[in-house]
Amino acid sequence: MNYRMISYIISRVLFIEALLLIVPLLVSLYYKENALGFLVAIAAAVLVAAVLSIPKPKTKAFFSKEGFICVGISWLAMSFIGAIPFVVSGDIPNYIDAWFETVSGFTTTGSTILTDVEAMGMGMLFWRSFTHWIGGMGILVFMMAIIPMSNEYSMYIMRAEVAGPTVGKLVPKAKKTARILYISYFILTALEIIFLKAGGMGLYDSVVHSFATAGTGGFGVKNLSIGAFDSGYIQMVIGIFMLLFGINFNLYFFLFVGKIKNFFQNEELRVYLVLIAAATVIIGFNIHGMYDSASETFRHAFFQTSSIMTTTGFSTVDFNTWPELSKTILFMLMFVGGCAGSTGGGLKVSRILIIVKSAICEVKRMHHPRSVNYVRMEGHRVPDAVVRSTLSYFGLTCLILIAGFVIVSIDNKDFTTSATSVVSCFMNIGPGLNLTGPAGNFAVFSYLSKIVCTVLMLLGRLEIFPILLLIFPKTWKRR
Amino acid sequence: MNYRMISYIISRVLFIEALLLIVPLLVSLYYKENALGFLVAIAAAVLVAAVLSIPKPKTKAFFSKEGFICVGISWLAMSFIGAIPFVVSGDIPNYIDAWFETVSGFTTTGSTILTDVEAMGMGMLFWRSFTHWIGGMGILVFMMAIIPMSNEYSMYIMRAEVAGPTVGKLVPKAKKTARILYISYFILTALEIIFLKAGGMGLYDSVVHSFATAGTGGFGVKNLSIGAFDSGYIQMVIGIFMLLFGINFNLYFFLFVGKIKNFFQNEELRVYLVLIAAATVIIGFNIHGMYDSASETFRHAFFQTSSIMTTTGFSTVDFNTWPELSKTILFMLMFVGGCAGSTGGGLKVSRILIIVKSAICEVKRMHHPRSVNYVRMEGHRVPDAVVRSTLSYFGLTCLILIAGFVIVSIDNKDFTTSATSVVSCFMNIGPGLNLTGPAGNFAVFSYLSKIVCTVLMLLGRLEIFPILLLIFPKTWKRR
Repeated sequence: MNYRMISYIISRVLFIEALLLIVPLLVSLYYKENALGFLVAIAAAVLVAAVLSIPKPKTKAFFSKEGFICVGISWLAMSFIGAIPFVVSGDIPNYIDAWFETVSGFTTTGSTILTDVEAMGMGMLFWRSFTHWIGGMGILVFMMAIIPMSNEYSMYIMRAEVAGPTVGKLVPKAKKTARILYISYFILTALEIIFLKAGGMGLYDSVVHSFATAGTGGFGVKNLSIGAFDSGYIQMVIGIFMLLFGINFNLYFFLFVGKIKNFFQNEELRVYLVLIAAATVIIGFNIHGMYDSASETFRHAFFQTSSIMTTTGFSTVDFNTWPELSKTILFMLMFVGGCAGSTGGGLKVSRILIIVKSAICEVKRMHHPRSVNYVRMEGHRVPDAVVRSTLSYFGLTCLILIAGFVIVSIDNKDFTTSATSVVSCFMNIGPGLNLTGPAGNFAVFSYLSKIVCTVLMLLGRLEIFPILLLIFPKTWKRR
Repeated sequence: MNYRMISYIISRVLFIEALLLIVPLLVSLYYKENALGFLVAIAAAVLVAAVLSIPKPKTKAFFSKEGFICVGISWLAMSFIGAIPFVVSGDIPNYIDAWFETVSGFTTTGSTILTDVEAMGMGMLFWRSFTHWIGGMGILVFMMAIIPMSNEYSMYIMRAEVAGPTVGKLVPKAKKTARILYISYFILTALEIIFLKAGGMGLYDSVVHSFATAGTGGFGVKNLSIGAFDSGYIQMVIGIFMLLFGINFNLYFFLFVGKIKNFFQNEELRVYLVLIAAATVIIGFNIHGMYDSASETFRHAFFQTSSIMTTTGFSTVDFNTWPELSKTILFMLMFVGGCAGSTGGGLKVSRILIIVKSAICEVKRMHHPRSVNYVRMEGHRVPDAVVRSTLSYFGLTCLILIAGFVIVSIDNKDFTTSATSVVSCFMNIGPGLNLTGPAGNFAVFSYLSKIVCTVLMLLGRLEIFPILLLIFPKTWKRR
């Protein structure tokens, strides 16, 4: 393993984090708040980064394994330092709680241990939402977009950080792909800020909510989440932008270069839109009569579907009070998540498609045992290795969810709370049902469960392997 | 498709069912009860069988597909006729309820819609438990053991009816394998009857409980299930026999022919025993203090673990009142189930092993992308096709569970009730949690949910394909 190279890259990541921390620092100063927490965090990031940049890389040998390790350690280091401001400011005095909140931010989960969000300072709330934006597309991808790096290992890092069963290169150079992704990300975020501002939302609120939408995170600055903004326009804008951020960003590139046909022919996108439409209609009819008008009913149905499916986790109402059918559908959508290559979490629509198609192939084999059936997507055959790894990934996900569920249930919270919290954390949604529903939070759990949930968030966001490899002894064995 | 051959085989199955129905008829007469229900059912079985035996098979062409279809239709026909006695006797006046109860019997699920089991007649209760015994090893396997049939298609039928990822032939002839299975089944059932009788249980109770244990079914004749027998001895006997019936019957053949080493070297068996032991210990400590003595505590822990893991579903206490950790562990064991080739349901230990090993292979591939990793069981490589079909089977199971969960949740029962009921039915356990827990029953559901649960039981027992193929239009298309 090329330890020196890994050390070098992590030092770069932390330098960038130090730079990014300047933004909430300025916000704090603008609102005349105590900014000591951010100063301490910046100092810590720079110090660690300086130490890590001492050993100079000797060789450029860098493969898939190094890519995963790099991403895994970077995310851990990033979140350990990102938690400092919360602790120093006293807003979240316990470090484990602060780490939970920071990981929840970077992984764009949006689960919180805070019972009263509104008690926090403006700078701190800004940082909390900003972590969503940073984590959404990935800080290493961001680094690749701005720092000159060899194309060779950029691809390995990108594969490890961007979510989905396969990562396509838009253009031959990974650096250029990273730039295209971030430019789309910037433009869409800016558009949302403009639309929210136009609807009468304050600039600060527009920015933090756009950050949380862009990363499909879900941290709000109000105790009632989006329900605090009693405006159908604002709720619809956020609902639609959540949907947009759950779409594969590569497709926006097609739009950008005028290949509109490619955009709408995308199978994953069509299934994604059909699922959201179907769930909205069923839930809309199921919650019929709970709200004043049909338009309000369907707005809430659409907003909540879009929020859960894209794994954002915003809420306009407490869907815990909805009938069981609606809650079950929302729970199922938690597993699906956004499209591959989007900021959304979950298993991703394309993985679900591969699992369904592979099951259909199995049924077809019963008809004609000797016939050869392939899983096909977008008219092309999906390589057997991808099908196999997708199915194994799904199996591994279930095993991790089971382990998490068993440990969290030691807290003796009810079945629904434990099960949905574990799924919500791993799939990077935010709220669960019952005690961790939109009106509740994760403060009900013990520190053991909070740590388990934090690890689940990291496992879910980085798609298991970057974190799993860290705890495999074989990874660290010198040959 | 060879319709004539299928028709011929189903007619034989129904003739055998008519013969088997004579047993509860005699029990009814012995207890001087009204036996009209059994007479009507026998008449119906003979009539349908006679009609189906009119077209004589022209060709012997019989393949995998025909095997699945045969098994699927036989089980449907068997349960439609098996439900008649309950309706005619008035014990379960509604036919859908009676069908639910009969399918629950044949599939060895043990879920009930009865609120007061003890109100039923002795003959009817005998039939209810007898269906477990018939369904446990499979009526078609029984038919093969007693009726002369061509070896060619026997194997296809056996593969479709006996559960597990692969069905091994013990001896070259399927007929002989079927006989060996049924002889072991007979001997073990007889042993349990003797042990229970020796513990002071009446003959009738010994027989019906042995039937329910042998099929890993779970129907009792008391409202308190096994809790009604306040004897540590009886509870331990049933607990141990449940465990024995969850073991691959092929292994008993090894014991029988003196290959004791082969018995204990079996990887699936060892994992099965370790899982039961581990769950017993954890649950025992978790429920510590709820019962009078440590021995009673661990007896209940062992009994419930053995009951859920083998998918029997008997209970000595209401585990709904246990702490969440214990309930979560029991819920997880529901998915595991017994060993392949046993009467136990669930995914089967060997499938879980293949899924876990395939996930480990995926992690290993991250270390050495170019290396070739195989899933190995018992020291042999598992063919890729088996791994792929196991993973697809797991995916398909999840999709079916999701569909079932969504439909059942229309009834608006709480999340835990709906989720655990669906899993319990598909995995052929019996009780769920909350409303369908050991102290509850499935009468709380609407007819829609009851039908969904019934279909789930059939899908689970026959491992999806025999039932799924029936609803695929392509199956019935003439070429």
